[in-house]
Amino acid sequence: METFDTLGRLVTLPAPGDEVKPPPHWRDGRRVRLQRAVGYACAPSDHPRNCPMATKKATSKKNAFYAQSGGVSAVINASACGVIETAMRQSRYIGKVYAGRDGIVGALTEDLIDVSRESPAVIRGLKHTPAGAFGSARFKLKGLDQNRAEYERLIEVFRAHDIGYFFYNGGNDSMDTALKVSQIGEALGYPITCVGVPKTVDNDLPHTDCCPGFGSVAKYIAVSTREAALDVASMARTSTKVFVFEVMGRHAGWIAAAAGLAGRKTGEPPHIILFPEIPFDRDRFLERVKQCVATVGYCVVVVSEGSAYPDGKFLAEAGTRDAFGHSQLGGVAPVVADMIRQAHGYKYHWAVADYLQRSARHIASKVDVEQAYAVGKAAVELAVKGVNAVMPVIVRKASRPYKWTVGHVPLAEVANREKKLPPEYITPDGFGITEACRRYLEPLVAGEAYPPYRDGLPDYVRIKGSPVRRRLKTEFKL
Amino acid sequence: METFDTLGRLVTLPAPGDEVKPPPHWRDGRRVRLQRAVGYACAPSDHPRNCPMATKKATSKKNAFYAQSGGVSAVINASACGVIETAMRQSRYIGKVYAGRDGIVGALTEDLIDVSRESPAVIRGLKHTPAGAFGSARFKLKGLDQNRAEYERLIEVFRAHDIGYFFYNGGNDSMDTALKVSQIGEALGYPITCVGVPKTVDNDLPHTDCCPGFGSVAKYIAVSTREAALDVASMARTSTKVFVFEVMGRHAGWIAAAAGLAGRKTGEPPHIILFPEIPFDRDRFLERVKQCVATVGYCVVVVSEGSAYPDGKFLAEAGTRDAFGHSQLGGVAPVVADMIRQAHGYKYHWAVADYLQRSARHIASKVDVEQAYAVGKAAVELAVKGVNAVMPVIVRKASRPYKWTVGHVPLAEVANREKKLPPEYITPDGFGITEACRRYLEPLVAGEAYPPYRDGLPDYVRIKGSPVRRRLKTEFKL
Repeated sequence: METFDTLGRLVTLPAPGDEVKPPPHWRDGRRVRLQRAVGYACAPSDHPRNCPMATKKATSKKNAFYAQSGGVSAVINASACGVIETAMRQSRYIGKVYAGRDGIVGALTEDLIDVSRESPAVIRGLKHTPAGAFGSARFKLKGLDQNRAEYERLIEVFRAHDIGYFFYNGGNDSMDTALKVSQIGEALGYPITCVGVPKTVDNDLPHTDCCPGFGSVAKYIAVSTREAALDVASMARTSTKVFVFEVMGRHAGWIAAAAGLAGRKTGEPPHIILFPEIPFDRDRFLERVKQCVATVGYCVVVVSEGSAYPDGKFLAEAGTRDAFGHSQLGGVAPVVADMIRQAHGYKYHWAVADYLQRSARHIASKVDVEQAYAVGKAAVELAVKGVNAVMPVIVRKASRPYKWTVGHVPLAEVANREKKLPPEYITPDGFGITEACRRYLEPLVAGEAYPPYRDGLPDYVRIKGSPVRRRLKTEFKL
Repeated sequence: METFDTLGRLVTLPAPGDEVKPPPHWRDGRRVRLQRAVGYACAPSDHPRNCPMATKKATSKKNAFYAQSGGVSAVINASACGVIETAMRQSRYIGKVYAGRDGIVGALTEDLIDVSRESPAVIRGLKHTPAGAFGSARFKLKGLDQNRAEYERLIEVFRAHDIGYFFYNGGNDSMDTALKVSQIGEALGYPITCVGVPKTVDNDLPHTDCCPGFGSVAKYIAVSTREAALDVASMARTSTKVFVFEVMGRHAGWIAAAAGLAGRKTGEPPHIILFPEIPFDRDRFLERVKQCVATVGYCVVVVSEGSAYPDGKFLAEAGTRDAFGHSQLGGVAPVVADMIRQAHGYKYHWAVADYLQRSARHIASKVDVEQAYAVGKAAVELAVKGVNAVMPVIVRKASRPYKWTVGHVPLAEVANREKKLPPEYITPDGFGITEACRRYLEPLVAGEAYPPYRDGLPDYVRIKGSPVRRRLKTEFKL
C-alpha cells in the first residue's frame, strides 16, 4: 500500500510479515517523521529525548486508569499485567493504578477498581489468566458531536480521581475512543495522556505486524484443526467424510488462515478454507469438496464466520446486532455442512469453537503472551515520557528466526481501520494459504506458555476488585 | 446394583467411584470366582498360575492382531502403544504384530498393517498422538445367526496369517464382537485368544471404574468450560448474557458432568448442566436461566447432545443414523440458545466442540494416558497367560490420594451394556453434580501429559502403514 509521508513523499507501507529494520532515526530528524507516518517509530526502550512524538514531559505525579474493551482474549490480562507492573515501578510519575470495572462503563459510572489493593501474586497471575479480569465492555462511545456528554463525564471522573494517564486495551473502535478522549481532555483544559494497548483476536489492526490475542487464537485453531482432522481421517472409511469447523473473523480471514498451519504437505488437512475476503462460490466449493473426498477419502473445511456471498450477504446471519452495530454471527458451520449433505449426501460433523477459541489460555502462544505483556509495558513507558495519543505496535525484524521489537504509531492512524488478509496470503484458488502467509503466521504461534494447574484444571487468578471510593455526587445513566 | 455371583450368592456390584480393595484371591478359590462375577478380578501383574480364568496356557507362538473400533479418542493410540510394546516384548508367545487398517474392516478385507515395520520412535509416539493411527471403523458385525459369513471370514484371515491373539480396542459394541469371535473361533476349530481393550469417551462401559479416553475429554470439557465462562463473565454487563456449550454423550451424562468440575463454589459456572439422564423440563429450565442471570449476571449452560424430552425425543435430532443404527446427533446448543432468546431475549453465544473434544490430545489427562497404556499392556499380559474373552478394567483403590490398579472381567459381562450416571452424582434439582461425583471425576482429569511441539504445533506421529502381503485369493465385499 502506498501513501504520502509527512514530507509529502510517496512511501510504501510495509505489509504484515515484511521485515522492517527499525531505522536509526535519532540520527536523522526527517527519518523520524517518515517512520512516524508509516507507523514504525521509536522503540520505547531506546526512545530518544528528542523524539518529535514526545510532545511533553510528564511533570507532576498523576494516577493511571486502565480499561479493557471489546471481545476479550487469552492474553488481554497479560497486557493488563504489563501495564500494572510497569506503572507500579514508575512511582515517580504514576500514583495509584485504577481499573474500570467492566471497561469504560466503569469510568462512566465512577466504578473504579483499586488495583494497588490486589496482591502482587494476583497481578503476576494475570499473565496466565484468560478473558478480562477487570471486566470488559461492548460499549462504543459515540462521536464527539453526537454525545459530548459521555466524553465530558469521562474527563469529570478522571479529574475527580486525579487521573492523568488513560490506557485503553482494545481494538480499532477503542483506539478511536482513546483518541477522542485525548482531544476532549485538551479542549476541556484537563490534558490526559492517552495510550492505546492493542488487543484483538481478529488481527485486523493496521500498522502493527500482529495484534496480541491473535497468536493464541491462531495456535488454538491450528492445533484443533490438526487434531480433529486426525479424528476424521481415522473414521472416514466407514463414517464421517466431511468435517466443517467454524472459526471467528468477522471481516478478516486471519483466524481462518491460521487453520492452514495444521497441514504442511499437499492433501493434508485443512483441505478447504473459506475466507471472508473471498466471495463464496457455492458450485466451485461443492465441486472441490467432492474432488477432495474422492482423492483423499475425506474433507476438512474451515469456514470463517464472516464468509459471505458475492453480494455481501453472510452465509449465516443471526439477524441481531451488537452495541457497535455489527451483526451477530454464528452458525455458518451447520449451514455449510448441510449444503454439502444436500449436494453429495456425505456423512458430516461440524464444530463451532466460538468463545472457546479466544479464551483458550491453556494452549496460548508463548510469543503472544510475551507480546501482550510487552505492549502493556511499552504503553506505560511511552506515557511517562509524555508521548500522547499513540499505540504501541509489534515490529517484525525477521521471520526465521523470529525477531521483533515494539514501536508505536499515532492513534489517528489506527482508529476505525481494518487490516484484511492480503491477496498474496491466499492461494490462487482461494481455498488455502500461501507460503508467504505461513511464513508470517508461524512465528506467532511459536512456543507454549502453560498456566499452572491445580486439581487437574488451570489455576486462573481472580481479582479482589476493591472499589475506589466515589467522589462525584452525580450518577451517570448509560 | 445387586447381582448373583457364580456360587449363587447375592452380591453388590461396586458403583463407579467406590473404593475396592483387590482381594487376596489367590488364598481363596471361592473368592476368585466371586470377584470374577462382580468384575474385579486378578491384577495381571500378580496373576496367579491357578487363576480359574486362565483356561489354557499359550503353547505355540502365534501372531497378534490389533484393531481400533468406533469413535476414536485422545488416548486410544496410547492403548495401541501399550499393546504393541508389550507384545513385542513377549516374543516367546507372540510373533508378528499386525493391525487392521481401518479397524475390523482391515481384517475382513485382509488389509493388514505390519506393525513391526514401524520404527520404535513412531510406536512410542503413538502415546502422545490422538485419534486412530491405524484407522478405526464404525462397522458393527451382526449377530452370529444373521451374518455368520463375516465371522467365518475373520477366522479365515486369522488362520491365513497365523493369528492367535485378537486385541479389540473399543466400546461395548466392540466387546460383543470380540466375544463372538472367540466363540466362533472355538466352534470352527481355530481357537483364538480374544481380549478387549476398553476405549470410549462416553465412559459408559460397566464394571470398570472409568474408560480410557474419558479422562481426557473430561479434562478438555472442564478446562474449556472454565475458560469460556471467564470470557462470558467479562462481557456480561454490556454483551453476552447466556453461553450454551454442547458436549458429547449420547445416553450417559458423564462428559456433561465433567463440565461441573469447572466451578467449585456456589454461583460459579457452569450454572446449569443438562444431562441425558434427566428428562428436559422446558419451563423449569427457562426459569432457572432467568434466575441465574438476575443473580449472577450471566448464565453458562452445558448441554449434553443426548438431552431429551420426557417422551425420549432428543432436543435436537438430525434424523440420520450411523452404522450402529444410532441416530446422529448434533446441534442441540443452537436449539437451547434460541429457546432462551425467545423466552427472555438475552444476547447469547453457543459452541459445539464436537470432534475437538475427543481428539484434544494437547490437553489430555496424564492419568488417562497412563490408564490407556496400562489396559493395552494388561490385555497382552492376560492373553499370553491364556486368559480368553476378557477385558482389562480400571479398579479404583482410593480417591484421595488417587490409587488404581488393573483388573479384568469376562467380555460377556461388558458386551452391549451401558453404564449411566448414577442418580447420586446429580444434584436433586437435576442441574448440577454432587460432591460424590466430583470425588469420582477429579482424579480422572489429574495431571498434564503434553505432547512435544514443533513449529508451534503438536508433533503427532504418522505410521508408515506397510501392508502385509495378502495370502487369500478370495475378496470380501463389505
